[in-house]
Amino acid sequence: MSRILRVAGAQMAGIQKSDTRPHTLARLIALLEAAAADRASLVVFPELAFTTFFPRWLLPTTQELDTYFEREMPNPNTQPLFTRARELKIGLNIGYAELTPEGKRFNTSIITNPDGSLLGKYRKIHLPGSVEPRPGARFQQLEKRYFEYGDLGFPTFRAPHFANGVLGMLICNDRRWPEAWRVLALRGAELVVIGYNSAAYDPNGGDSETPASRTEHSQLAARANAYMNATWAITVAKAGDEDGSGLIGGSCIVDPNGHIVAVAKTLGDELITADIDLDACRQGREKMFNFAQHRRPQWYGPITSQIGAEPPK
Amino acid sequence: MSRILRVAGAQMAGIQKSDTRPHTLARLIALLEAAAADRASLVVFPELAFTTFFPRWLLPTTQELDTYFEREMPNPNTQPLFTRARELKIGLNIGYAELTPEGKRFNTSIITNPDGSLLGKYRKIHLPGSVEPRPGARFQQLEKRYFEYGDLGFPTFRAPHFANGVLGMLICNDRRWPEAWRVLALRGAELVVIGYNSAAYDPNGGDSETPASRTEHSQLAARANAYMNATWAITVAKAGDEDGSGLIGGSCIVDPNGHIVAVAKTLGDELITADIDLDACRQGREKMFNFAQHRRPQWYGPITSQIGAEPPK
Repeated sequence: MSRILRVAGAQMAGIQKSDTRPHTLARLIALLEAAAADRASLVVFPELAFTTFFPRWLLPTTQELDTYFEREMPNPNTQPLFTRARELKIGLNIGYAELTPEGKRFNTSIITNPDGSLLGKYRKIHLPGSVEPRPGARFQQLEKRYFEYGDLGFPTFRAPHFANGVLGMLICNDRRWPEAWRVLALRGAELVVIGYNSAAYDPNGGDSETPASRTEHSQLAARANAYMNATWAITVAKAGDEDGSGLIGGSCIVDPNGHIVAVAKTLGDELITADIDLDACRQGREKMFNFAQHRRPQWYGPITSQIGAEPPK
Repeated sequence: MSRILRVAGAQMAGIQKSDTRPHTLARLIALLEAAAADRASLVVFPELAFTTFFPRWLLPTTQELDTYFEREMPNPNTQPLFTRARELKIGLNIGYAELTPEGKRFNTSIITNPDGSLLGKYRKIHLPGSVEPRPGARFQQLEKRYFEYGDLGFPTFRAPHFANGVLGMLICNDRRWPEAWRVLALRGAELVVIGYNSAAYDPNGGDSETPASRTEHSQLAARANAYMNATWAITVAKAGDEDGSGLIGGSCIVDPNGHIVAVAKTLGDELITADIDLDACRQGREKMFNFAQHRRPQWYGPITSQIGAEPPK
C-alpha cells in the first residue's frame, strides 16, 4: 500500500522592517506558484510568515505591535495568497500573529485545503523567551510578552484532500518538546508541519552555540521526534538576516525513519519538495513504536503531574 | 563552576552460548581494570552483560531459562567483578536477568558506588518483542515472554561519590521512548546510563533497516533525548555476533547538547572514556529547556491518559 502526497516547504529569506506588505505577499505568492508548478498538493510556509520576527524587539506602543497582527485570516493584506492557492488547487500551511475579536494575541498556524477551505488551526503552546527584556542581552526573545499560550491543545486533522492523511501542526520552539510530538502521534499524526524563526545567535541558547550547531539541533529534534513517533515532518524556516538579527535555515523534509529526504541549501527564498508516502509510517507504528503494545503510561505520571524538575535531595 | 566526572563505557563483543561464566567474567574484569587504569570513576556495561541475549530463542524448559538468571546480585558467579571494583575504587553500572525470591523475572540494571555499596536499581519498563514467537520470523525477540514489566518506575539517585550528580538508568529499548527520558529529567537526571543488546537485523525494526541505520537510530535517540533533556548519556552495547545473530555496536558518550564526545569504533570489547562536566547541563536547564518556565502539562494529557494511538475518524 502507498498513499503518496507531494509536498513542498517554502523557506523564506528574512523580512525587513522596511519591507512593505505587498512586497512580502509577492514573495509568498512566487513560492506558492513554484510549489504548484512542481505539482505539490501542500506547501508549508514559516512561522509569522507575513512580517519580520517582531518579538525580538521591545516595541514602544500597542499601535506599533498591532501592525504585525492579523484581525482575521484571510484579510485584505493576505487574501491574494489564498485566492491564488485556490486557483492553483494547492493547500498551504502558514503562520501568522493572530489578534482575536476579544483582544487575545496568539502565535498561530493554519492549514487550508486545495479548495480553499480551512482544514485546521493551531496556536503555539511552547512560547520561548521572556516577558521582560533580559538586561544587557544583545538579542531579545519576547514571545512570552506579546503572545498568550495557545489554548487549542495539539489537535490533529483527518485530511481527505491530502491522501486521507492525519496532519498536525507545531510552531518553532514546539519542535524541541517531545511531549508536543507525542500528543500529536497519540492522535494519529502521520505528517507534522512546522514553521520556525530560530535565532542564529543567543536567545534561549547559550553563547557557546553557533548558527551551525543551532541548525543541527533543529534537524536533530525533527529527525528524532519523527523517528520516535513514526511520522513525517516538514520543518520550514524564515532564514537569514532580519535588520541585523540572524535566523538559521536548514528547512527539511524528514521521513518516519528520521532521515532527511529534502533539505534547503541556502538562507534565502527556496523551495524543497518530496513525494512522501504516508503509509511509510506503518512500519514504525506496527512494530518498534506500536504504542498500544509497548507504552507504559502508569510510569509517565510526572510528565503531566509536575511542571519543573524536582531533583532528589 | 564545573563538576567533572571521568566515565567509561565498556562495550562487549558477543557472548556465545558455549562461553563459560568464568570466561565472560574474566572479560568483564579486564574491561573494568582498563577503565580503572584510565582513571574512570564509573564504568557502564551492557544490558544482560553476564550472558548471551537469550530472549532471541524460544527456550524449551524453565530449567534452561534459569541458567541465564541471577537469584541475587552479587552471587558466587559474579562476586569477583564487584570485589575487584571495590579494590580499584570504581563504580559500575551493569545489566542482568533478575529472578526474585518471589519468582518474578526482570531485565535489571544496578549502579554501585566506588566503595562497593549499591547506589540504585532499575527494572526495564519498555520490554520490546512479543510473548509468542512470530511465525516464520528468522529472528525472535521474546522479552515480553521472559520478563515482567519493570515495577520500580524511573527513579533517579543523588550520587555523592559521582561528583554529587543525579543519575538515572534506562535499558536498551527504553532509550527510544521519550517519556522515559523526560521522567528521569523531571527527577533531575544529569547523567543517564544505558546498556543495550540491539539486533542488527529484523526484530522490531522492519526489513528495510540495515545494521548501519539501526546504529544511526540508536545514536539519534541518545543524542536528541540528551539534548532535549539537557543531560549527559552513556549508551553501551553488547555488539557483534552471538551464535549467528548480529548485534549493533555504536556505544557512545553524549553531552547535553546532543554531541557525541566518545564513540566505539569496533564491534568488540572496547572501552570509551570521557571527562564529563555535570554542570554542562545547566545551560540547557536554565535557558532553552527550563522546564518550570516553559512546559505546559495541561496539554500533555493523552501521554498519561491513553496508551495506544487514537486517530481522528
